[in-house]
Amino acid sequence: MNQFPLIGLGLVTTNKAGETLDAYFPKIAFKNAIDGDGDLFEAWSNLLDQDICEITDLSTLQLSEKSFLSSLGKPNENSKLILCRISEDHSLQSVEEAYLKLHLLSYKFFQPNTLNLENMFNILPNVAWTNRGPIDLNEIDQKILESKAQNISLEIKSIDKFPRLVDYIVPAGVRIADTSRVRLGAYLSEGTTVMHEGFVNFNAGTLGAAMIEGRISAGVVIGKDSDLGGGASTMGTLSGGNAVKISIGENCLMGANSGLGIPLGNNCIVEAGLYITGGSKVEMFDQNMQSKGVIKATELANVDNLLFIRNSQSGAIEARVNKKSVELNNTLHLNQ
Amino acid sequence: MNQFPLIGLGLVTTNKAGETLDAYFPKIAFKNAIDGDGDLFEAWSNLLDQDICEITDLSTLQLSEKSFLSSLGKPNENSKLILCRISEDHSLQSVEEAYLKLHLLSYKFFQPNTLNLENMFNILPNVAWTNRGPIDLNEIDQKILESKAQNISLEIKSIDKFPRLVDYIVPAGVRIADTSRVRLGAYLSEGTTVMHEGFVNFNAGTLGAAMIEGRISAGVVIGKDSDLGGGASTMGTLSGGNAVKISIGENCLMGANSGLGIPLGNNCIVEAGLYITGGSKVEMFDQNMQSKGVIKATELANVDNLLFIRNSQSGAIEARVNKKSVELNNTLHLNQ
Amino acid sequence: MNQFPLIGLGLVTTNKAGETLDAYFPKIAFKNAIDGDGDLFEAWSNLLDQDICEITDLSTLQLSEKSFLSSLGKPNENSKLILCRISEDHSLQSVEEAYLKLHLLSYKFFQPNTLNLENMFNILPNVAWTNRGPIDLNEIDQKILESKAQNISLEIKSIDKFPRLVDYIVPAGVRIADTSRVRLGAYLSEGTTVMHEGFVNFNAGTLGAAMIEGRISAGVVIGKDSDLGGGASTMGTLSGGNAVKISIGENCLMGANSGLGIPLGNNCIVEAGLYITGGSKVEMFDQNMQSKGVIKATELANVDNLLFIRNSQSGAIEARVNKKSVELNNTLHLNQ
Repeated sequence: MNQFPLIGLGLVTTNKAGETLDAYFPKIAFKNAIDGDGDLFEAWSNLLDQDICEITDLSTLQLSEKSFLSSLGKPNENSKLILCRISEDHSLQSVEEAYLKLHLLSYKFFQPNTLNLENMFNILPNVAWTNRGPIDLNEIDQKILESKAQNISLEIKSIDKFPRLVDYIVPAGVRIADTSRVRLGAYLSEGTTVMHEGFVNFNAGTLGAAMIEGRISAGVVIGKDSDLGGGASTMGTLSGGNAVKISIGENCLMGANSGLGIPLGNNCIVEAGLYITGGSKVEMFDQNMQSKGVIKATELANVDNLLFIRNSQSGAIEARVNKKSVELNNTLHLNQ
Repeated sequence: MNQFPLIGLGLVTTNKAGETLDAYFPKIAFKNAIDGDGDLFEAWSNLLDQDICEITDLSTLQLSEKSFLSSLGKPNENSKLILCRISEDHSLQSVEEAYLKLHLLSYKFFQPNTLNLENMFNILPNVAWTNRGPIDLNEIDQKILESKAQNISLEIKSIDKFPRLVDYIVPAGVRIADTSRVRLGAYLSEGTTVMHEGFVNFNAGTLGAAMIEGRISAGVVIGKDSDLGGGASTMGTLSGGNAVKISIGENCLMGANSGLGIPLGNNCIVEAGLYITGGSKVEMFDQNMQSKGVIKATELANVDNLLFIRNSQSGAIEARVNKKSVELNNTLHLNQ
Repeated sequence: MNQFPLIGLGLVTTNKAGETLDAYFPKIAFKNAIDGDGDLFEAWSNLLDQDICEITDLSTLQLSEKSFLSSLGKPNENSKLILCRISEDHSLQSVEEAYLKLHLLSYKFFQPNTLNLENMFNILPNVAWTNRGPIDLNEIDQKILESKAQNISLEIKSIDKFPRLVDYIVPAGVRIADTSRVRLGAYLSEGTTVMHEGFVNFNAGTLGAAMIEGRISAGVVIGKDSDLGGGASTMGTLSGGNAVKISIGENCLMGANSGLGIPLGNNCIVEAGLYITGGSKVEMFDQNMQSKGVIKATELANVDNLLFIRNSQSGAIEARVNKKSVELNNTLHLNQ
């Protein structure tokens, strides 16, 4: 179990005013480390007079770090090396802290919803993400003219507060068909495939091998061996007035174009095209297909072995017992 | 209120035959300009012997324009400087005019549906949009071989009649998570966020701050403080036989995976997963949830304060009075 | 009718261990060729001692091939020229064969579902697709550090077993608004437009001009003059337990956000937002809107002239006779 305090060694990009646009943390040291990084934490700690410090003198670092840093290239007028310490898990105070916590999630040091990310949207600057790195939006027009005058290609891929995951971290054992669809801060477990129509927000992801062809909203986690079908929606807590945190258990199948506004248990199926909201009223059936009455969908939160369908003749949403366990074997996860 | 006539100063890319592939208009002068650009219009007008003229002699321009143009770099064998005048708003006659009108929309000089865009699809050439600029499709195979032989990266991002917005114009105060999803000709108001699953066609957009996670079809406009949920569809008039122009009022919420085939009033909600088509029959309820009978959805066009749901037990589409106003405060628009 | 045996002349990218990452086949020769390529097949055949051979001595090739190859640039330490022969259509044995068959589909030499693609997912390596070409995932961290140290842009666009189509083949007469959405192995007929929200998997595609704004799953084919609406889903056979191969006939319209789990006949409409699964029960109506009873959707597989809707008041899925033929004229296919 990882815990604070910790220190990240980071490469920061800045705008012309010296303000931080983003931070890349290739190395993080924990005070209470199982693998012996505790020494590194102490060494770095001695260099810090406040929680974020620029490293101007590489000789203060240990040899192993120096060679690592030299491989990162020389910081230039738009970048600098820093150490960033987070002593306890308080709300975010700086861009560097925000990026360090996004790294903690994507390195899988902490699971989604276990870190204090308060203030994230206020702290993070909106940035132009280009093939020439992050650029301050106040400087983008100048850069565009420069690149035209010098006949250099400048491509703005995104104008956003969050960058894409793989510009910082490439998780082992995953496929991401379109890397623009996964934000830094996503938590992707080994064996996960994110197809072209899939999307993973920050502070969200998969707890095991999973097939993601739909959208994982911020705060949502998907259990292992589950399949989020093409265009399937998981309701976020950021917009739409939804207050309950959505999750999907293990061995679940969300059909294509379906949607989910309640936390789903294990071994559940939501039929293709059906959107279950918290307010949906659902007729519940037992194993013998005897009706047990109508209840609110929220009462079925986290219940296992359910099959949600809309009766194609009565139009009513029903929850039946899912008799066949979902077959999500290796073949499925290999194939797509 | 902007109006014709106007002249655009443009940088045109051409194919080997000298035909125009695209045009970038960094500067537009109106005859009847509030801010004094009228002088510029007159100066440029004097240079034009027809509506589109190449500028071969920079000395004919005023000094301020020359320094501006030099910042654009030297036109080369594949590009040229032009002036393009549109005297009145007739149907499109040339690629340059088409691009100029797309710029007029994206600069927000004119709102969607206020310009004559007839002939757009006939006029615009299909182009390969690459990291090396626009390339004629008849020349693309040769370029691919050249780039392989010279070991130069050539990436074809799109093969389309329309380029992406941000290769021409970066609107102030917006976020666009994936810039490939917004076409030149989109009208994006300050405070708008277009998420990864959002899409904005030409001649379409937002009239105020809005959260766009669904698809804004050509001709569709979204009012301020509205939220188009993930994967939500707005029916276009280009395909599918739909003739009515769709729009969404202010303070509306289209739920995730919902869809809209009628113009929506202010302060309305369409439940997640529900598609309202013009032909849908809707049971109407008053404030006391007394049925007022069944009507066609088109009769509810532009009516305010409605909540559209599909009754989860009867399967019927209902329109209820939306009692709580949609809370789309600053937090929502900051957060996503 | 094309047939085996055939030989592809390919440019292979390898990792540091010499293993194949991908293969580009600019030229394919058939033994039984109508256009005289049979001679070429024989010439190449003489060079092969086994089914896959590296060409180390260009002088063994005929002059016309040499000049073609020189236009491809010099193979370097990460690439080599090969000949790959497939004598009969057996299951896949090598990466080169897999890529050759994907080319056969995208060159439209063979239609989807006519080639033996068994073993595809086991054979294909997971690769990082970057602006600097394909990179082995075991070498990606090193490449990232190198590019940082040398201040070279390295962008990982995709981590996947399949590359995007247009990095290999640009089909004539198509538009692909976002090229990251079409995999190598897609079969795109002239006149096809794939919009931003469209997607085409390998071994899938269009048999004529079509408007694709939804997702064509592996194994699915769309007939000419059909329109797959925005976000529309076609159920694949790879996941979700679906066993029936889905297809869409000619002159069909799948509405936005609709979905399909049965093969559709000609001149059919599925209403926007409606998902027809194989298990759906459908009330069938005749021309005079007299009910003919309720049947399973699978019984309507490949039936022509149907209009599928969900009755907006009863909630029942209905199949009515589609009286108006779908108007998918040239205008539609031009316009979007």
